[in-house]
Amino acid sequence: MGEDKLWEGRSLAARIRVEVAARAARFRRRMGRPPGLAAVLVGDDPASFVYVRNKARACREAGLYSEVHHLPATATQAQVVALVRRLNARPDVDGILIQWPVPAGIDYEAVVAEIDPARDVDGFHPVNAGALWRGRPRLVPCTPLGVLALLRAYGVTPAGRHAVVVGRSPIVGRPMAGLLLLQDATVTVCHSRTPELGRIARQADILVVAAGRPGLIGADHVAPGAAVVDVGINRQGGRLTGDVRRAEVLPVAAGVTPVPGGVGPMTVAMLLVNTVEAAWARAEGRPPDSLAACPPLREATA
Amino acid sequence: MGEDKLWEGRSLAARIRVEVAARAARFRRRMGRPPGLAAVLVGDDPASFVYVRNKARACREAGLYSEVHHLPATATQAQVVALVRRLNARPDVDGILIQWPVPAGIDYEAVVAEIDPARDVDGFHPVNAGALWRGRPRLVPCTPLGVLALLRAYGVTPAGRHAVVVGRSPIVGRPMAGLLLLQDATVTVCHSRTPELGRIARQADILVVAAGRPGLIGADHVAPGAAVVDVGINRQGGRLTGDVRRAEVLPVAAGVTPVPGGVGPMTVAMLLVNTVEAAWARAEGRPPDSLAACPPLREATA
Repeated sequence: MGEDKLWEGRSLAARIRVEVAARAARFRRRMGRPPGLAAVLVGDDPASFVYVRNKARACREAGLYSEVHHLPATATQAQVVALVRRLNARPDVDGILIQWPVPAGIDYEAVVAEIDPARDVDGFHPVNAGALWRGRPRLVPCTPLGVLALLRAYGVTPAGRHAVVVGRSPIVGRPMAGLLLLQDATVTVCHSRTPELGRIARQADILVVAAGRPGLIGADHVAPGAAVVDVGINRQGGRLTGDVRRAEVLPVAAGVTPVPGGVGPMTVAMLLVNTVEAAWARAEGRPPDSLAACPPLREATA
Repeated sequence: MGEDKLWEGRSLAARIRVEVAARAARFRRRMGRPPGLAAVLVGDDPASFVYVRNKARACREAGLYSEVHHLPATATQAQVVALVRRLNARPDVDGILIQWPVPAGIDYEAVVAEIDPARDVDGFHPVNAGALWRGRPRLVPCTPLGVLALLRAYGVTPAGRHAVVVGRSPIVGRPMAGLLLLQDATVTVCHSRTPELGRIARQADILVVAAGRPGLIGADHVAPGAAVVDVGINRQGGRLTGDVRRAEVLPVAAGVTPVPGGVGPMTVAMLLVNTVEAAWARAEGRPPDSLAACPPLREATA
């Protein structure tokens, strides 16, 4: 017991990256250039450096072009916006992302709203957030998309299930709820103001935890047979831990995703999916569709 | 018992309309013209005729300018879009709405996406839906906004409560969930694919029913002391009925909104709120803010 309940994401993400690389290669043959991603990093957050480097490396390994724009923490809003506008105008840039968080002087939402929605590979632009909630998803945020793909790969279908999402950030919790609803789950969103988290979490067939609170979820929060997805990435004494007390939850749950090696690799793979999809969509003059472009989800609906 | 539990919306809506009329009069004095609403009606749905007429009358009574564009059921997508674009360019038109439903040949979402988001007084444009879910609401859909205002007026604050929304339409259920989440409720969205509606609905402190199924909700769906909001408008033998079996639920609940005379009048009042807010926002060169412009909500947060 335990081994097969540990729903790791690394090998799944690797398989997806192989498919994405093939799709990127077809794009390069057709268009004479690879799909391109531009990442914007403002300031000196050490974790952000690591994330951006990992994303850039994953791009290169899949045959995408990637560039990183590093602005100092003293950069003004106007400077960041001007950079985004230049990137929007570049024909070789298919995807643009602003690494979160940004320094206090920068209005993140306002910068994101400047990205061309067709290049918004994080899916954070209001137009993309709205398209999801209006029931016509285009570019969908990478982490929730990766969670959905991981669940599908491990045989969990949201339709008719009760999904509980812990956390309501615009980056993970909210779009996760939107995606699960789109897939016909009954969806509950809990957060820091939820008085009886345990009582609600125990009703979940699918429990997605994105609270950013180490060890928040224990065995008493989990129904027997539940699918538990741990989106938490917390640094404790140089080690990464999730929001779920895994050792305690594993015997109860149908499966638990580890941290690291669970959702994290899926998020990076989905960034590649979105970038290559954005490239093809622009080339073909159609709206992008993250769900249709994501291998595990495509197979499930085919 | 019963009288004070019947949370009617007519007199509350009338009070709001008086405030809106005063705000519209100030706009007229300042700008030399009243705030203006253009409604677009395509085809011959009889209920839509009534809705549009009621909205136009409410505008006139509050001192707003209003015009209705009625296109035949044979109108093409291109014709409807061309009309929307002409209205977007009109300086005297502050609000534009496309009455739902539209004939089968028209793509409603695509038409709505053509409306200038700053004039989208229904709050259905992806930019406005996305702004709500990114946590920075601008123009918010009228019915959920009216529900929130009605709850506040009857002393119900969502923060820390469990709100259950039955129905997931992009018009009511989804934006209702977004608003309740924004107000710090724990939110569950149920729908036609929810297997145990009763078990979930009985957990609600606030139960908002927008399923469009007459009499769906009975006493066995309602916890003692719950606030029950009935958004259903069903025509049965020439009479309007809601989704809630009111006589049965009234003794259990803290309050129930009637149909007609509950949420309906609030929806029309919120359309006026949004139109006058859109007018002021454009005049002042700032984004519109439905929540700040809505009297009961403004008082509650002041």
